[in-house]
Amino acid sequence: MQVKLASSYGFCFGVKRAIKIAESYENSATMGPLIHNQNEIDRLKNNFNVGLYNSLSEVKKDDTVIIRTHGIPKDELRNLKKNKDAKVINATCPFVTTPQQIVKKMSKENYSILIFGDSTHPEVKGVKSYGEDQEDVHVVMSVKDLDKINFKYDKIATVAQTTKKKEVYLEIVNALILKNKEVRVFNTICDATFENQDAARDLSKEVDIMIVIGGKNSSNTKQLHAICLENCTDSYLIENSKELEKQWFKDKKICGITAGASTPDWIIQEVVNKVEEYNENF
Amino acid sequence: MQVKLASSYGFCFGVKRAIKIAESYENSATMGPLIHNQNEIDRLKNNFNVGLYNSLSEVKKDDTVIIRTHGIPKDELRNLKKNKDAKVINATCPFVTTPQQIVKKMSKENYSILIFGDSTHPEVKGVKSYGEDQEDVHVVMSVKDLDKINFKYDKIATVAQTTKKKEVYLEIVNALILKNKEVRVFNTICDATFENQDAARDLSKEVDIMIVIGGKNSSNTKQLHAICLENCTDSYLIENSKELEKQWFKDKKICGITAGASTPDWIIQEVVNKVEEYNENF
Repeated sequence: MQVKLASSYGFCFGVKRAIKIAESYENSATMGPLIHNQNEIDRLKNNFNVGLYNSLSEVKKDDTVIIRTHGIPKDELRNLKKNKDAKVINATCPFVTTPQQIVKKMSKENYSILIFGDSTHPEVKGVKSYGEDQEDVHVVMSVKDLDKINFKYDKIATVAQTTKKKEVYLEIVNALILKNKEVRVFNTICDATFENQDAARDLSKEVDIMIVIGGKNSSNTKQLHAICLENCTDSYLIENSKELEKQWFKDKKICGITAGASTPDWIIQEVVNKVEEYNENF
Repeated sequence: MQVKLASSYGFCFGVKRAIKIAESYENSATMGPLIHNQNEIDRLKNNFNVGLYNSLSEVKKDDTVIIRTHGIPKDELRNLKKNKDAKVINATCPFVTTPQQIVKKMSKENYSILIFGDSTHPEVKGVKSYGEDQEDVHVVMSVKDLDKINFKYDKIATVAQTTKKKEVYLEIVNALILKNKEVRVFNTICDATFENQDAARDLSKEVDIMIVIGGKNSSNTKQLHAICLENCTDSYLIENSKELEKQWFKDKKICGITAGASTPDWIIQEVVNKVEEYNENF
């Protein structure tokens, strides 16, 4: 079987960086799961003894604690450093640190703050926590949510959750521009998610079968799968090589492979190897 | 004839203010025509001896010079004050002073400047002149013009000519947001023009005949006329009451009246009076 990998797939820059950091701190622990992939968390535990804390109360004095890619709220970080006296290794993605710092600076300069994103997402909780006046930091998911907001100022600064869609951000920003004197728009959306999607779209047009590797509960992986199905009806979503089924590949010549943002390279490589073997057996 | 005036018509706030200022400085002169209406300029000359200069060279020492609503370039203002030692009365509309000051402040803070407007328009020339680095102040009329621009910074501050359309401004701003880290959008568009247009649209739907009063070369008046024609085929564009023709009003019951942004109230009143008289004569 001829295998073609998408031109962009799997981990983004921030996740690759966080894993490298974790690998270099043996016997440490991450605050919350480093990524949404249990196989990779197990590998870090088995090979580097990197553990997992789910709350501050589990942290012991002098522990080395790794902050994961999407960051944590300001107060939690402070508690970790001061009250717990832990050694804190910050693996927050630089693309997430940026909106945190923007919110801090802009609220100090008396701008009302608008965050486009999901208020329950850890990244957004972290970014929001950097506002000086928490009552004037507003989180919206769509332009409709703006109606409910009373901004303190007519100068608004906006940031977006890194994985959000630009089109929706522009809709929100446009509505604000029409109603306010100044809107200071920071483009904090990261292209990584969309690069994987664009590459999957292109590849799925030129293959007989498409394999999408990632968590079945991961919204990002499900979106990749939906995009592939638009162009290639034989598109399958699997979590690892064990789920491959030989009969899928009957009479197929080219197999495209892509992977969600939380899928490690070694899992992808196992899939590639197994699919290539089918070549010989039909 | 029943006459209905549009709910908004004629002079905007800035023009009314400038005329009041001119009336209060007898024996002064305006730098360029105060508004695009010769009748009004004649009235100011006849009643208040307010003259008209077309260039700096005409200004004499100790003259009182009035700066008109759309402002003048920074250097010309300085020359007027220093070299000519003239008493300068600034009738620049506050809605035009705002973008001038924004461009000044933002270019000092190392933002590249984008102005949405017509580079040949006096207002835009004035606003542009306030940029610290003239090579990094860019004027565009549409989103297409952005392709030619090399911004010095990836932080852009934008302002718009006060009379431009918001929809086009948003198009331009959106394109910038997608390509730059920060876009600081100042909403400097003035609603006055659009209030007259909206009111003309509404009124033209409920009358038999529509009279639009204004300069036949004024783009703003021509636009009002075009809007009225959409709803009322008997829409006429006139400069003053002398151009009214009695036969237009035959079998008509309600006449709507509106006026361009440079049409003084006394010209409008003359038209209203004459149209009301037709009542009795049919």
